[in-house]
Amino acid sequence: MINNIKPDPQEERRIWRFDVEGVRQMDDVVIREVPLTIYLNGQEFVTLLYTPEMADMLAVGFLRSEGLVKDFGDITSLRFDGERGFIFVETKNGGLTEKLYGKRTITSGCGKGTVFFSVLDALKNKPVESGLSITYEQVLGLVRQLQENAVLFQATGGIHSAALCHPDGVVYTCEDIGRHNAVDKIIGLCLKNSVSLEDKVLVTSGRISSEILIKTAKLGIPVLLSRAAPTTLSVELADTLGVTLIGFARGRRFNVYTHPERVQINEVIGGNEGEDN
Amino acid sequence: MINNIKPDPQEERRIWRFDVEGVRQMDDVVIREVPLTIYLNGQEFVTLLYTPEMADMLAVGFLRSEGLVKDFGDITSLRFDGERGFIFVETKNGGLTEKLYGKRTITSGCGKGTVFFSVLDALKNKPVESGLSITYEQVLGLVRQLQENAVLFQATGGIHSAALCHPDGVVYTCEDIGRHNAVDKIIGLCLKNSVSLEDKVLVTSGRISSEILIKTAKLGIPVLLSRAAPTTLSVELADTLGVTLIGFARGRRFNVYTHPERVQINEVIGGNEGEDN
Repeated sequence: MINNIKPDPQEERRIWRFDVEGVRQMDDVVIREVPLTIYLNGQEFVTLLYTPEMADMLAVGFLRSEGLVKDFGDITSLRFDGERGFIFVETKNGGLTEKLYGKRTITSGCGKGTVFFSVLDALKNKPVESGLSITYEQVLGLVRQLQENAVLFQATGGIHSAALCHPDGVVYTCEDIGRHNAVDKIIGLCLKNSVSLEDKVLVTSGRISSEILIKTAKLGIPVLLSRAAPTTLSVELADTLGVTLIGFARGRRFNVYTHPERVQINEVIGGNEGEDN
Repeated sequence: MINNIKPDPQEERRIWRFDVEGVRQMDDVVIREVPLTIYLNGQEFVTLLYTPEMADMLAVGFLRSEGLVKDFGDITSLRFDGERGFIFVETKNGGLTEKLYGKRTITSGCGKGTVFFSVLDALKNKPVESGLSITYEQVLGLVRQLQENAVLFQATGGIHSAALCHPDGVVYTCEDIGRHNAVDKIIGLCLKNSVSLEDKVLVTSGRISSEILIKTAKLGIPVLLSRAAPTTLSVELADTLGVTLIGFARGRRFNVYTHPERVQINEVIGGNEGEDN
């Protein structure tokens, strides 16, 4: 069913390196960015720019994130044309496209370019509920593992990574120039392999803007963890939607912005100290 | 003509700080993210999520980047409703919306969510031409200045910055949670103040994906400079479209990926060394 051609996600380029000694030509590795056009039920649906790895999982995850499919069984056919950068997806429920793409929101961060505020209202009626709990050491461990697994980042310095994790270990790690693509690739893998999300932690290398928070809540993932900063809107949404939002997880510390009940607390130190990122 | 309400771009939030000593509650500064809906000639056009500073310049810059206005004179009215997060723009040339928004591309990086491949073909026929030249020391100086000017980043750690520069100094710096927003705010300022772009350098804190490169080329800016990494597509486009692309400008060194003729070379060291980011 899935024809997963794997082109190289990075390539060597001839560059000019300037430094204190002057300039020299050398080869350097650059992360690849190519278009992937998703045809949904015969219609050209959208073109994503992505790092050419797991095109099929990206397409599946994107459609799931956008609410166009609920599980892998909704997809009756998935055909990837690596030559042209096309992927053809057939689903049981055709024709949703118009309705969903009526309203268009362009997002602030590394946005997939579509946030449906109508979806928000729906979400508010069923916040994420999960008994998942995670300890201080587990949080630090997951961030460390994400960095260790970020192979392309280490090679190119120009890519985002995301990982779906149990509190004590990574289940999947994906990388992409788009931080939403990285998450969607993971979602695709989970859908394909029937991996549950409601007992998992999503770790992302990127900043947490409202859209990635909404994506997390839509999928029912209870904990979102990042080395980077959240925005006020993502914090407000996390609070409303029942997501534990953890940011600035660096070295031996992190900030919990919402729903700290899921993070196991060792000891409470009183006091009210100033901002210190 | 411009009613520029300035809400606070950041706000204090109560957080839980976990570290080796345990957990404590404290106040931390979080960057604000709010929606801005642009009404173009009476029609709801698009909603951007942005950091509430310079909404009017963002709207103007966005419309310029999308090719809906050419100069500030095309805008006959600009009214910002800070309460509702609406901005009403009237232009001389109404009704372009349909045509432009027929094809929709969702971008990889911090994408505004719209790249028109048709625009690409047009661009290829008129690459950026500019006699601008910049020296090694000037490149390092501009990167340093961008970092010094990134006030919100220093406070919140969660924001992108962009600067329009002469080779030897910054003209404008803008910050936003969206790296494209930061650039569009600058474009808005240039349009409003009739600042030329073809003799300038655009410095961005973010990675260089194809879309920011296309934006730069569309505006005729000859040099794009970043501390971060480019993608292969941005390098290919920069080569074709006549943009000097400089990445990984950190410390005392940087990489020039395309059109090095605009960067003043001190001395050529031979040899062909391996990747070393």
